[in-house]
Amino acid sequence: AIFAAIQAALNKGPLRGRHAIVTSGPTHEPIDPVRFIANRSSGKQGHAIASALAALGARVTLISGPVSLPDPPGLTTIHVETAREMQSAVQAALPADIAVCAAAVGDWRTATEAGQKIKKGGGAPPSLALAENPDILAGISAPGPQRPRLVVGFAAETEKLEEHAATKRARKGCDWLVANNVGGTGIMGGNENEVLLLTETDSAHWD
Amino acid sequence: AIFAAIQAALNKGPLRGRHAIVTSGPTHEPIDPVRFIANRSSGKQGHAIASALAALGARVTLISGPVSLPDPPGLTTIHVETAREMQSAVQAALPADIAVCAAAVGDWRTATEAGQKIKKGGGAPPSLALAENPDILAGISAPGPQRPRLVVGFAAETEKLEEHAATKRARKGCDWLVANNVGGTGIMGGNENEVLLLTETDSAHWD
Repeated sequence: AIFAAIQAALNKGPLRGRHAIVTSGPTHEPIDPVRFIANRSSGKQGHAIASALAALGARVTLISGPVSLPDPPGLTTIHVETAREMQSAVQAALPADIAVCAAAVGDWRTATEAGQKIKKGGGAPPSLALAENPDILAGISAPGPQRPRLVVGFAAETEKLEEHAATKRARKGCDWLVANNVGGTGIMGGNENEVLLLTETDSAHWD
Repeated sequence: AIFAAIQAALNKGPLRGRHAIVTSGPTHEPIDPVRFIANRSSGKQGHAIASALAALGARVTLISGPVSLPDPPGLTTIHVETAREMQSAVQAALPADIAVCAAAVGDWRTATEAGQKIKKGGGAPPSLALAENPDILAGISAPGPQRPRLVVGFAAETEKLEEHAATKRARKGCDWLVANNVGGTGIMGGNENEVLLLTETDSAHWD
């Protein structure tokens, strides 16, 4: 930690003078004041990437959903809860040379958030109507004056890793896509991953 | 921590020879392999109660949902994720002299859990059908040969604290009910509470 902080201060790495935005962790989408929809993301991957970019000399803005991890030293961490808050924070952090979207952003939020706790009545359980969240990766990958030179997306898949990943990379418009196979047990939140890296022309596997 | 462990080992407190079951933390109800419904509970209250009962000499079984807290020393901690797992763990831990149900058990789970990650298609967002979870507090409060002598329930309310708490105590059949006002900001997950304690005949307020 001290080493990383000193190195970032000296600003000597190959990414010196570059600004990198990294999103990390889950998002929490409120149902009512006490309940929410979440996803399984510890933030370990995104936080590690942010620290690595800082160690390489980049100025790093880490935009993190709710995690149990400490803020990494040597970079700026912004805390958000929902997908919409994360999108606003990403836009406020632009321009950037590199964007790494490692957060597990919730695809959906509840269509309406209840202002008071929903009571368990005697009747049938409620049904939750959902609305689509903004697509942060597609938004930052879209052509425009503020598009970072390198945009890296992540995918968590439980089946058909290559097929889903290639489709996702093309649809989102990002340069690289890192696909994690989360089909096994204990991977999300754990420390090991099965990973596929896709670029426009190449693919590489790691175990 | 060392003090509590020594004290529990010496077994000298007023609750010596008693068995206490304490539930703590949230439950996570899976939607699919990567998404779940959760509630805002840090487990701080339940874990603190479990440690206090152990310090008073009780043999404590702490049944905890997913929390970021370490297992307290001097007692047995059982880790669960869903409401149904918590109910099974409570039943397996019986008989007990005292049961403190401090966990924020999810009232509902999804009616069906998807085996694979639900994909975001081009169409309308899905709607989540919910099913009611088992009522752990009402179950353990019901008359029977294994009912603990003292059953303490908790309520998190955002409005009409006294009215909702009194109704809940009578409906659940527990001896004491501790009602937390979570209507303000930063209380769930925070370190301070506005609390109302209700027994069959009395009520007391703390701020």
